[in-house]
Amino acid sequence: MGPRWKGKDAKAKALADPMSSIVLQLQSSLVQSDAQGFLCGCNVLLEAGPKQTDLLLRACFGEPIKKLNDQELFQYMKSKKTTFPDSYKAYSHLRLKNWVVMYDSNYCADFVAYRHHPSLVHSEFVVILLSEGDSESNDRLRVWSDVRGTKRLCKVIKKALLVLSVDKNGHDATSPSCLEGYTVTEHTISRWSPNNAMRITRKMIGNQVVVLCH
Amino acid sequence: MGPRWKGKDAKAKALADPMSSIVLQLQSSLVQSDAQGFLCGCNVLLEAGPKQTDLLLRACFGEPIKKLNDQELFQYMKSKKTTFPDSYKAYSHLRLKNWVVMYDSNYCADFVAYRHHPSLVHSEFVVILLSEGDSESNDRLRVWSDVRGTKRLCKVIKKALLVLSVDKNGHDATSPSCLEGYTVTEHTISRWSPNNAMRITRKMIGNQVVVLCH
Repeated sequence: MGPRWKGKDAKAKALADPMSSIVLQLQSSLVQSDAQGFLCGCNVLLEAGPKQTDLLLRACFGEPIKKLNDQELFQYMKSKKTTFPDSYKAYSHLRLKNWVVMYDSNYCADFVAYRHHPSLVHSEFVVILLSEGDSESNDRLRVWSDVRGTKRLCKVIKKALLVLSVDKNGHDATSPSCLEGYTVTEHTISRWSPNNAMRITRKMIGNQVVVLCH
Repeated sequence: MGPRWKGKDAKAKALADPMSSIVLQLQSSLVQSDAQGFLCGCNVLLEAGPKQTDLLLRACFGEPIKKLNDQELFQYMKSKKTTFPDSYKAYSHLRLKNWVVMYDSNYCADFVAYRHHPSLVHSEFVVILLSEGDSESNDRLRVWSDVRGTKRLCKVIKKALLVLSVDKNGHDATSPSCLEGYTVTEHTISRWSPNNAMRITRKMIGNQVVVLCH
């Protein structure tokens, strides 16, 4: 079995442009540009100029990646995580108020929020996100025992519980601009104290927490 | 519950360097550098100069990644795929002979090898890798029915079967330099034809396949 060329000119084209010469040119181009890639799983992401890209393609190393616009990036993130729009809206909501927001991996919550850099201050809020239409998040804090358990945990770890409800207000999640129509409501849940017969709720205004006494 | 600062100077430090001002500086730095990142799963890899890196860290966005040397890259790839050293040795062996080698996703083999760019020529070899000590690969082509089945498939798809055995020659796989001590042996398996009473084997010398008649 010999080579099976694709089309009648393919063999002549291949002979005129041998792979050995393409690879040599590519090697010298990579050395010249002092090429350094980003490791991404088992792939390497390499920034290459037009000439190097051409050599890479002719030598059959890798494939070019397309630049995504905001809309495509939004769709990509949604495909990775269906709740991305709500999660991003809630994240931005806190970031815009200058809270430092990190994904939570300790308290079965969504985020933890810091008043400043985590090297200077402990996180102040455990943030739970309730999204409209998301069945998993809608089942959270639904029964009293869950609320009490979460609140109890927060007391032990000396953090406040912040529940963010994201309301889509009838907007779809088809593009990043839809998020502008979403609203985020903050609820902090505190213990009702029969001693002073006051219900205490707290509201975040900017980077401040205001205690409201009813 | 108020903020719990870490250490006695933390609050003063935070007040002297408010998060709002850090974020503003970062935003302007990102706009100025026309920052573009590589999307890697749900992460973004961003090339940043020292000043921008400092701002990203102070605003608590992401974390710096370390430059890996050859040895670290080798260990990383081994951690992703235990058979990486053998697989890479076999891949390099064919690439050094100017074959274009692609991972195989169609024929339950390891690679397919092309004489030139796949846009010009169909792949010529289905490559199966037998590695010393790799229990899965050692079970391949062990019984006659497997060899016959694979050979039959290759006939249908008009490709030759190339079996590469990687021999470690007692070398470990602890560093990329160990691979220099490995040897790769090529076997192509062909049908014995009683008509001409010749056993035909083929040998790859450089980018050429030489047919040897016994």
